Amino acid sequence: MKITTEQIQDFNKAGLGSHKENFDFLANKLTQNGHNVEAILSKLADFQIAIPSWALGAGGTRFGRFSFYGEPSSLEQKIEDIGLIHSLTQTAGAVSLHIPWDVPQDYNAVKELAQSLDIKFDAVNSNTFQDQKDSKYSYKYGSLSNIEKEVREQAIQHNIDVINIGNKLGSKALTVWLADGSCFPGQNNFQAALQNTQDSLKDIYKGLPEDWKMLIEYKPYEPNFYSTVIQDWGTSYMLANECGEKALSLVDLGHHLPNSNIEQIVSILMLKGKLGGFHFNDSKYGDDDLTAGSIKPYALFLIFNELVYGMANNPQNPDLAWMIDASHNVKDPLEDLIQSLEAIQEAFAKALLVDQAALKAAQLAHDVIKCQEILQGAYRTDVRPLLEKARLNRGGVISPINAFRSLDVRNGLIKERGRNSVATGL
Amino acid sequence: MKITTEQIQDFNKAGLGSHKENFDFLANKLTQNGHNVEAILSKLADFQIAIPSWALGAGGTRFGRFSFYGEPSSLEQKIEDIGLIHSLTQTAGAVSLHIPWDVPQDYNAVKELAQSLDIKFDAVNSNTFQDQKDSKYSYKYGSLSNIEKEVREQAIQHNIDVINIGNKLGSKALTVWLADGSCFPGQNNFQAALQNTQDSLKDIYKGLPEDWKMLIEYKPYEPNFYSTVIQDWGTSYMLANECGEKALSLVDLGHHLPNSNIEQIVSILMLKGKLGGFHFNDSKYGDDDLTAGSIKPYALFLIFNELVYGMANNPQNPDLAWMIDASHNVKDPLEDLIQSLEAIQEAFAKALLVDQAALKAAQLAHDVIKCQEILQGAYRTDVRPLLEKARLNRGGVISPINAFRSLDVRNGLIKERGRNSVATGL
Amino acid sequence: MKITTEQIQDFNKAGLGSHKENFDFLANKLTQNGHNVEAILSKLADFQIAIPSWALGAGGTRFGRFSFYGEPSSLEQKIEDIGLIHSLTQTAGAVSLHIPWDVPQDYNAVKELAQSLDIKFDAVNSNTFQDQKDSKYSYKYGSLSNIEKEVREQAIQHNIDVINIGNKLGSKALTVWLADGSCFPGQNNFQAALQNTQDSLKDIYKGLPEDWKMLIEYKPYEPNFYSTVIQDWGTSYMLANECGEKALSLVDLGHHLPNSNIEQIVSILMLKGKLGGFHFNDSKYGDDDLTAGSIKPYALFLIFNELVYGMANNPQNPDLAWMIDASHNVKDPLEDLIQSLEAIQEAFAKALLVDQAALKAAQLAHDVIKCQEILQGAYRTDVRPLLEKARLNRGGVISPINAFRSLDVRNGLIKERGRNSVATGL
Amino acid sequence: MKITTEQIQDFNKAGLGSHKENFDFLANKLTQNGHNVEAILSKLADFQIAIPSWALGAGGTRFGRFSFYGEPSSLEQKIEDIGLIHSLTQTAGAVSLHIPWDVPQDYNAVKELAQSLDIKFDAVNSNTFQDQKDSKYSYKYGSLSNIEKEVREQAIQHNIDVINIGNKLGSKALTVWLADGSCFPGQNNFQAALQNTQDSLKDIYKGLPEDWKMLIEYKPYEPNFYSTVIQDWGTSYMLANECGEKALSLVDLGHHLPNSNIEQIVSILMLKGKLGGFHFNDSKYGDDDLTAGSIKPYALFLIFNELVYGMANNPQNPDLAWMIDASHNVKDPLEDLIQSLEAIQEAFAKALLVDQAALKAAQLAHDVIKCQEILQGAYRTDVRPLLEKARLNRGGVISPINAFRSLDVRNGLIKERGRNSVATGL
Repeated sequence: MKITTEQIQDFNKAGLGSHKENFDFLANKLTQNGHNVEAILSKLADFQIAIPSWALGAGGTRFGRFSFYGEPSSLEQKIEDIGLIHSLTQTAGAVSLHIPWDVPQDYNAVKELAQSLDIKFDAVNSNTFQDQKDSKYSYKYGSLSNIEKEVREQAIQHNIDVINIGNKLGSKALTVWLADGSCFPGQNNFQAALQNTQDSLKDIYKGLPEDWKMLIEYKPYEPNFYSTVIQDWGTSYMLANECGEKALSLVDLGHHLPNSNIEQIVSILMLKGKLGGFHFNDSKYGDDDLTAGSIKPYALFLIFNELVYGMANNPQNPDLAWMIDASHNVKDPLEDLIQSLEAIQEAFAKALLVDQAALKAAQLAHDVIKCQEILQGAYRTDVRPLLEKARLNRGGVISPINAFRSLDVRNGLIKERGRNSVATGL
Repeated sequence: MKITTEQIQDFNKAGLGSHKENFDFLANKLTQNGHNVEAILSKLADFQIAIPSWALGAGGTRFGRFSFYGEPSSLEQKIEDIGLIHSLTQTAGAVSLHIPWDVPQDYNAVKELAQSLDIKFDAVNSNTFQDQKDSKYSYKYGSLSNIEKEVREQAIQHNIDVINIGNKLGSKALTVWLADGSCFPGQNNFQAALQNTQDSLKDIYKGLPEDWKMLIEYKPYEPNFYSTVIQDWGTSYMLANECGEKALSLVDLGHHLPNSNIEQIVSILMLKGKLGGFHFNDSKYGDDDLTAGSIKPYALFLIFNELVYGMANNPQNPDLAWMIDASHNVKDPLEDLIQSLEAIQEAFAKALLVDQAALKAAQLAHDVIKCQEILQGAYRTDVRPLLEKARLNRGGVISPINAFRSLDVRNGLIKERGRNSVATGL
Repeated sequence: MKITTEQIQDFNKAGLGSHKENFDFLANKLTQNGHNVEAILSKLADFQIAIPSWALGAGGTRFGRFSFYGEPSSLEQKIEDIGLIHSLTQTAGAVSLHIPWDVPQDYNAVKELAQSLDIKFDAVNSNTFQDQKDSKYSYKYGSLSNIEKEVREQAIQHNIDVINIGNKLGSKALTVWLADGSCFPGQNNFQAALQNTQDSLKDIYKGLPEDWKMLIEYKPYEPNFYSTVIQDWGTSYMLANECGEKALSLVDLGHHLPNSNIEQIVSILMLKGKLGGFHFNDSKYGDDDLTAGSIKPYALFLIFNELVYGMANNPQNPDLAWMIDASHNVKDPLEDLIQSLEAIQEAFAKALLVDQAALKAAQLAHDVIKCQEILQGAYRTDVRPLLEKARLNRGGVISPINAFRSLDVRNGLIKERGRNSVATGL
Repeated sequence: MKITTEQIQDFNKAGLGSHKENFDFLANKLTQNGHNVEAILSKLADFQIAIPSWALGAGGTRFGRFSFYGEPSSLEQKIEDIGLIHSLTQTAGAVSLHIPWDVPQDYNAVKELAQSLDIKFDAVNSNTFQDQKDSKYSYKYGSLSNIEKEVREQAIQHNIDVINIGNKLGSKALTVWLADGSCFPGQNNFQAALQNTQDSLKDIYKGLPEDWKMLIEYKPYEPNFYSTVIQDWGTSYMLANECGEKALSLVDLGHHLPNSNIEQIVSILMLKGKLGGFHFNDSKYGDDDLTAGSIKPYALFLIFNELVYGMANNPQNPDLAWMIDASHNVKDPLEDLIQSLEAIQEAFAKALLVDQAALKAAQLAHDVIKCQEILQGAYRTDVRPLLEKARLNRGGVISPINAFRSLDVRNGLIKERGRNSVATGL
């Protein structure tokens, strides 16, 4: 299934008048306040977020999973799904593959398909938290951190394999999420586990092509419930430093202890030139993997405020890899992704409205009231017309959710794939 | 110090044109979408939030306190401060007194002063968490829950005294925040502590005038760090039921364990007709007592969404007492309160924009995507023009913070009171 | 597989001398300090904890599951597994069935098997958090709380069915764990969800035999990540009160927000005569379902301190249902259960050593230091000899873990069942 | 007031028989199991914990403080208080001074007093979280991180002054607890705050004598409630690395987000040679500053398990500075400190009983059950006889709390100092 330019133009017709009115009013106000609206639109248009290949079907919990309909059952179908989202939103121009779930059968075909949909291959993800049917050693007691050399070597080799697969597709980064840890006090020697992990990461790093990055994720708990080897940004940062300059930390918003100040972590990592990428989602309790912006949109804005600041002021930090990492337990996965994309763009747009010069002046004057007024002034602005405009400029639709429904995309997919197709993933 | 009508009109002049443009544009859009803008403005105008008498000076922590300047040093000056805020914002038409910090010397004079400033006397607050110089028994090991009858009786009598003071001023409610609890396992018998508390509350309840309410606050910890007698809404609700229909639960936003779903608590208490009032503030870690809406504005909106729903659908629940309960450690207290008032009104206005009929329909259809679109559609709306209009309609200013600064209020207060005056309170 | 009396006696031989020395020394000390050792041993021997039928195989997370070997693949084999544990520990004399995973084929055969192993049928558990193959309606959007009547009725009928199954086996209680809730703000109307739940529970309650109890579990989150209908003890207690005196609250140790004071909840529920039962496990982060006592053994002791107090002083509270509810992700499930049983018995034994009269006297004297000395004095006592003696008195082994290994139980099971048998459950 | 050798011997008489019986029984068992009891006793005797000079009077919260009686009102009296504890426990042979609260008037006199009581001067603590009467600049908006150079310089100079004071007394370390941070989003530029802090710390480091260490504390929140500059171990570690090898991280047990795995942090810091010291206390909610071991004694044991491992296996890590940092809100401060000392020694003693070789073997075999058995086997041992023996060997008492009461120490202090003397501190 593919959405045509005609369908998009048709859909937009009805809303264009109202959009123009709203946009002009807002753009005028912003211009009066010294903002460069064109520059903002251009940044929004350039901001592309990768969709993970494992998040195109329904998600679940250890207590079960309620399937959705018309899920993609092959890598090609997954890419087609992203193509659908991208054609509507114009912000999902990349896919992040998970190996071994997404090993291409025909590399050229897959590349051509992606190219035809304007989709790039972002970071590739390895999986050493599950055992594969054909694997010799089990990861039950750890992979890169395992005390047994054979297990570590198998896990290292898997990461090298993943790099090679990604390399054939045009990816430029490997994301390592290491679930290793322990469920009970005493199970692991913390020091040995970290040392082994460091050595394993260094071995993988050696296999990294010159123009690649290695992104090291951290997480305090789950699936291990007593300790995790890379439990926080400090550990990830330490490991990235040990590996070398192509190794960077990756922040997943759900991977923090309660009440963490994530924006500060983001800011400090950028100061040190070590922030490599982002996994967007939202959460209330743990790694809930909810739609981005659905629970704490102001926190998302504050994070983008630091990102915008860092991208302008921290040349020492490389370009960032952006990805959604959410689970769709009760929503249509494609609609859910559209809501996440919208929320992320919204946070970015609002952060672009922060008057950095005025903020700095207020900070220098210890004018805390003013600092808050500046941030909240930007946040309170209704930026939806900007997002619409940015999408329209690139050939997308005014309202992606409405278009998705109006074009009856899900039923189209069900017709093509059947009601009970199931996507690989969690 | 007093702000005159002329000063207000003068201040408003410059901004009226821009305000009108923004308001008209928004009102037009809202009307097109089926909203009754006049009704919304009327609800906003009627929404009055009490200012606690103890929050007009700088706050502090156990590690110290950095004073502010020109703090009010008498009850009269505190009321004058609230008058200043109210004249600008038109939403702070009440004061909530803390006894013994605010016992009036001359009741008539105090009442007249308040009346002249359009300020009502909201709930009165008792203090049994500190020892007073002239008190016979110490509350070190508890007050209403103390195992010693004499101590409980002293605390009960204090609450009766507070009722009597409030009664002379026109208050209609007593708020009981009971700090009682224990710092170490074994220190308290949980059952005896609860039973004593229940008996004490019943005794206080007996002293409640017919048209009064008793609001029972709950809090999980601080100042006690192992257990608190009234640790959660369940305990507060249980006690309120035991006392009678004039006893109700009071929700302070900062008094919850990490990750609590407060809006659900609010909703259930209203269903049961037992929500009595609110203490607004915001927090990231514990009972941080920060400016309302400064950390989690979306959560505040979700709470107001339940309040708006309950006020429309739960006739079994009485009118609510609204109060700010924040601490001003690094901001000018009056400016801080203005920011809180603004954030509360904003959350209320946005909640009023939720299309309840559409939400119900989406819920019935299990259309989770749509439910979120509806809530976030209201939340994303920039309602500042509505707040401005509601203020203007009542004779307030377009922008209270700017007016406060433009009129140089703080320096006026310093001139009157001196730089080093200190307010009673925490 | 079955462990014979001879095997047990054989195993015990080697350790009896050392055990006797340790026990005599401890018993002598305790007797000197005024304890009645025989009474303590008798209480320990009578304390029987149900094993859940779903916890005899390896557990997992949403990220995967690593199988164990020789898991029971039928209800009969599950009961046999419990029989093995019980023959060693003499404290696991009950099974708690989960329907539909454990519907007996032949009731008489199952009952006879259980009786032959000295195993009773404790509370039965319903499952409305997953869809069954043959079910007409899906629970994706809730079961007992669903806004659709047909779904609620299906879920109610399932619970009635579960009661009937349990009744045939001799169970006397139904445990309702309701996973219902929502993943996003707006998805649910909190009030409707609670009302529906209340009505559904009342309907189930009507189907409860005269001598049965209904145990209502609560949990703040997971598998729903924004709200859960029965989110805390207050809600469970409220619902139990609405249903009637046979309805009671059930506490699962992992079902609380961070930092909750669980022992206080236990104490207050017993005061109100509404504590019905317990699910034991331990956790560091969320509902981690780790071995009881493996993370916070002192908290477990403090809970038992309240239970011992309540069982002695709260005749208004009925007898309690005790169950382990843990997940075995990295340990042999049977060994894991043995460790849990040991930790629970240990906490109980230590709580029995608390000098309640001295504690009360210290509380009355506000002697916080002494209160702590009393509790910690009991906690610091090494009670392992008491547990050994209680087991020996009933025909069990001195050291269950060592016996399990020495008798090579797991390999025996693998021989019987094969290496790759898989238990039903999560 | 001073406790004489005769008083101690007198007190011990009554308990010696029972002690000997218990010790001999335990020592015999331990020896049978391969432990070197003499070596354990020697390590316990050598383990000395500093008492902070600010924790000898009653503590309080922002809601108030309930005084205790006979508090020390001078530095000399504080040292005398520690002398009393030390004479009983023989484990409190050091004092940690807080400047400016404890600037000596007469250095020689203070040193002689301390020496006469066998008390050393441990790390000195600077205070830049409060304004002093004579200070030129305020720390309201930060000290070492302040954007104003003058403020930073004042704070740096204060730290240099503290070093100089400590140097005269024989201290060898400076502890920097930096409360700096922000209460609201936008108030601080995170990067500027960290850079300024780093520069300031480097300036202080330059003033450090050759044989000194600088211990950098971290804390997530309080007294700032949005962000703290040194918010976690990762930041502290980063700063320590920037400063040099004499700079190390200091862990305060209460300074972590909910559910943190502190023992892993401890282990990793020791692996990296960067753990400098410890502040002992316990907590249930935040930085509650309760008696060590009063809430989570098993966590304390797990931490000591890592410390014992690190002290044996990490020569790259320097000797550690041990200190209690608790607040005494409802207990006699001296009795409270005695309970903390006892709990710390207990955790240390139990950790010394862990069979490290067996643990390593079990880890290598992925025998998680066994790992837990080993740790809990050590933890379940009642080590009180070992602590008694270690104290007796050094001339202390069998039971410090009982001795403190039997010798009527508090009344003696009240007689000397009066009932209403108040200690400086929080």
